[in-house]
Amino acid sequence: MSTRIVRIEEKILKKNEVSAFENRELFKKNKVLAVNLLSSPGAGKTTLLVRTAELLKNRINLAVSVGDLQTEADAERIAGAGVPVVQINTGTACHLDANMVQKSLSHIPLESTDILFIENVGNLVCPASFGLGEHLRVVILSATEGEEKPLKYPPIFQTAHCVCINKTDLLPYIDFDINKCRENLARICPNAEVIEFSCRTGEGLERWFDWLIDRWKIVYGE
Amino acid sequence: MSTRIVRIEEKILKKNEVSAFENRELFKKNKVLAVNLLSSPGAGKTTLLVRTAELLKNRINLAVSVGDLQTEADAERIAGAGVPVVQINTGTACHLDANMVQKSLSHIPLESTDILFIENVGNLVCPASFGLGEHLRVVILSATEGEEKPLKYPPIFQTAHCVCINKTDLLPYIDFDINKCRENLARICPNAEVIEFSCRTGEGLERWFDWLIDRWKIVYGE
Repeated sequence: MSTRIVRIEEKILKKNEVSAFENRELFKKNKVLAVNLLSSPGAGKTTLLVRTAELLKNRINLAVSVGDLQTEADAERIAGAGVPVVQINTGTACHLDANMVQKSLSHIPLESTDILFIENVGNLVCPASFGLGEHLRVVILSATEGEEKPLKYPPIFQTAHCVCINKTDLLPYIDFDINKCRENLARICPNAEVIEFSCRTGEGLERWFDWLIDRWKIVYGE
Repeated sequence: MSTRIVRIEEKILKKNEVSAFENRELFKKNKVLAVNLLSSPGAGKTTLLVRTAELLKNRINLAVSVGDLQTEADAERIAGAGVPVVQINTGTACHLDANMVQKSLSHIPLESTDILFIENVGNLVCPASFGLGEHLRVVILSATEGEEKPLKYPPIFQTAHCVCINKTDLLPYIDFDINKCRENLARICPNAEVIEFSCRTGEGLERWFDWLIDRWKIVYGE
């Protein structure tokens, strides 16, 4: 029984890898930098995308594929910021897979997109196992979740290129030890960039914009 | 392929149901009320258990089985409040299943326990599908996660007997519409009790304690 389950899991992951590879080829062909955005529910993925769209859309062409179990609320919020967006409803599935993303790409103007954000389902566990063909994985940790989360949910942090600590405007009102959080991140994902900001006040977001545009330049040059 | 996957999933869930049934029998035999505690990472499950232990441990006998991918940090915090606790490390598994809980029960003094809390892995999706033999499901929603979460993650809210809105001390500093949240909960889980509190300040916790002890009395009488 357990052997069969393992084989099925391998098949699912293998099938995902094939779709992820195809996505990656499509991104390369169109010079699109693809960013997989991951976090717990409510850590601020959609708000970060709205802020990023508002501030960068005249400098660089953005697009978004956004995954949720249900509702189109996130796509509507992001569309309000003036960038092309596709909502993926996963039903009961706890993560996006590469095939779901692939289907959404036919509704995205890839040839005129520089950076594609793929907003994953809010979940700090399962999305870590499914590559989508992305270039970068960005994990958002809300300060309200606590500084020990990288130790308790290591797989998702270990695969992150960048960890954003959001909601820093709430630091005076919560028991969050930001230095301890940085120590924990240094232990679990020593090579990840760590950026602190508040999407609500905008403080610290400049570093995020700079980091993002630098990554695009590194991959596709100028 | 997809037919095979469905059959395997059914087998896994069937196996889980058998273990859940056995757990439930064990709870009945020992007059233990079992509470499955669910939420996103960092919504306050462990803090609620510490507060509950501090205030109720002289009135009623509590015990805790706590699930995390890694670390024993939560068990240590709860043990500090003076109640028996067992840490379950799930490795990479995104939820507790009934068999994991069953293994932990041999380390819990069930015959002298009135209420057993099973603190699930922080995840607002997957734990909804796995019954553990519990009497009650309690979902904690942190106000910082946003009022639309019941609409976006309906399965876990639909199976809740009680939804606790935590971190109400932060309401002055965040954009959380508590009335809209109550409306959303009324739509998704009209029969669930809704209790608001702040584990940090203690405000509102009395209603939680009363609700909990009432449930124990309803199940095991006085």
